[in-house]
Amino acid sequence: MKATTIYAPRDVRLEDQPDPTIQKPTDAIVKVVAACVCGSDLWYYRGDNPVKEPMRIGHEFVGIVQEVGAGVRSLHAGDFVIAPFMYSDNTCPHCRVGIQSACSAGGFWGGPDRDGLVVDGGQGEYVRVPLADGTLVATRETPDAAMVPSLLALSDVMGTGWHAAMAAAVQEGDTVVVVGDGAVGLSGILAASQMGAERVIAMSRHQARQQIARAFGATDVIEARGEAGEAAVLELTKGVGADAVLECVGTGQSMTTAIAVARPGATVGYVGVPHGVELPVRTMFSRNVGVAGGVAPVRQYLPALRDQVLSGAINPGLVFDLELPLEQVAEGYAAMDERRAIKTMLRP
Amino acid sequence: MKATTIYAPRDVRLEDQPDPTIQKPTDAIVKVVAACVCGSDLWYYRGDNPVKEPMRIGHEFVGIVQEVGAGVRSLHAGDFVIAPFMYSDNTCPHCRVGIQSACSAGGFWGGPDRDGLVVDGGQGEYVRVPLADGTLVATRETPDAAMVPSLLALSDVMGTGWHAAMAAAVQEGDTVVVVGDGAVGLSGILAASQMGAERVIAMSRHQARQQIARAFGATDVIEARGEAGEAAVLELTKGVGADAVLECVGTGQSMTTAIAVARPGATVGYVGVPHGVELPVRTMFSRNVGVAGGVAPVRQYLPALRDQVLSGAINPGLVFDLELPLEQVAEGYAAMDERRAIKTMLRP
Repeated sequence: MKATTIYAPRDVRLEDQPDPTIQKPTDAIVKVVAACVCGSDLWYYRGDNPVKEPMRIGHEFVGIVQEVGAGVRSLHAGDFVIAPFMYSDNTCPHCRVGIQSACSAGGFWGGPDRDGLVVDGGQGEYVRVPLADGTLVATRETPDAAMVPSLLALSDVMGTGWHAAMAAAVQEGDTVVVVGDGAVGLSGILAASQMGAERVIAMSRHQARQQIARAFGATDVIEARGEAGEAAVLELTKGVGADAVLECVGTGQSMTTAIAVARPGATVGYVGVPHGVELPVRTMFSRNVGVAGGVAPVRQYLPALRDQVLSGAINPGLVFDLELPLEQVAEGYAAMDERRAIKTMLRP
Repeated sequence: MKATTIYAPRDVRLEDQPDPTIQKPTDAIVKVVAACVCGSDLWYYRGDNPVKEPMRIGHEFVGIVQEVGAGVRSLHAGDFVIAPFMYSDNTCPHCRVGIQSACSAGGFWGGPDRDGLVVDGGQGEYVRVPLADGTLVATRETPDAAMVPSLLALSDVMGTGWHAAMAAAVQEGDTVVVVGDGAVGLSGILAASQMGAERVIAMSRHQARQQIARAFGATDVIEARGEAGEAAVLELTKGVGADAVLECVGTGQSMTTAIAVARPGATVGYVGVPHGVELPVRTMFSRNVGVAGGVAPVRQYLPALRDQVLSGAINPGLVFDLELPLEQVAEGYAAMDERRAIKTMLRP
């Protein structure tokens, strides 16, 4: 099969790899229908995270089950499935409280599993899925092709945006600020809006992203950044600040802004992988601003979000503004790196 | 009147001061029935916070209203009142969401108010209380003398321990760890227990404090600190960690322990004023451990806690293990500084 490997910053290649096979009774083999490129893949692409050796990459995909191991109970060949960006057994104590991203048997796509066996990344034709029962979420029927982008968005960005809103404890009637207008930030806007926020303030300076933000429920858009952006939020909220803040970038500046615009007692739900973030504990303490979040337990939210997509209540697939055949995966990365695309979908 | 001033580290004096008078229509004058010394007063006493100039000190007291300004509606001369450790109008947007400690018109006892007028500290015979309606909470009748310590405990430590448990989102059935066995930590144990925690693990190495911890509902006591203490919690929780953690000290070590023993998805509710704390954002992110808390909005919790004390449901006054006449205020500080006392009550 063809699958993607990153060799070094800006060196992403689609190459021949062995077809995956069932290695353990809990495995499934999935034929990828659609995959995508993640903002966190760009940390490697840009050299912000080191690429120590060539590495299989990709962690967002939907597909059709080809084969299941003897121990798989809930899935069958032919099922259309959504994969969260981590695999998990969904039975350990951390999974049972809904933090499948801390599963004691789980892990990330692309790396070796706990027994050193290859786990495929999602940017390829097939994937061996460990712990398939606890990981994959199936649809009852094979969905219409038009639904595929929105179901694919659930594998990471929509679940991650949802986690930001959950961590920030968004309540009906709230005023919510979303810092970050990437695919996760836009998904956070959609999540806050779905949770009943009355006012959703998007911080975005890109026309195309602002349009999606509005489509997802943003009521206000602030283009300014840094202190000017913070001042604009405070003006909009009559000096009070926001009831909940979603931090969807992961830089020091975005976190500073997120904390500054939170009203006392509010929580910043953060899902941007922190790069150069220092939490200002004295400020947080004096203002009673909490921070919560982390690696999103997408698996927790998947069944409900799948139903919302299938019922037409949400359309998170709008974040995909570039679709390419898998062979052009390198261009998919370049387009996102150069901000020519918000998010790239890849079709094998 | 007599009132307490701190001149320098370890130099606390009871001196003559002008009797306070009504300065604004929203003021009340309160005759102090009982006051106490706070762990945070010790930051100045020990020189950890600078004493730039002589400063009136004390912020926990109960007393009898002597006189009210023309604008005071809910209080009358003769009322027994509990003062939270900050004054607040209880009407601004921050107060209305329950964060009276961020009141836009409020402030701390002992310092000048926003117009530069003296606000007395609580360790004296009388106090001018600004914004009396929004600050003081009265009892319906003058309580029995035996109730005074527990009502006094509500002015800070019990409300602060309650805030830690609220910030940590303690739920019925939870396993809760409380880091810190000072009066606030002990109050946090009582709060977690009242909120229905099934297991409350106290981290304490002092016999006398362990006894109060048990009386307040601690089910387990861990004497070890640092990594050994963290390992002991993980062993008790079968490697999972605690559902909620209360950080009631404010040092780097106590916060490190609090975060380490939290299970993924848990929140550390912190109320110890941070001194030398650096929040490990990457660890928090990878484990989905949040931190929330800060300067406790004691005023929010006071009416309900008052009722719990008066009904006999809680007895937070147990934290006072030393009672002295106000004249011996200096000894009251020394006893706490030298850990001869958990918390000192002062009677004018």
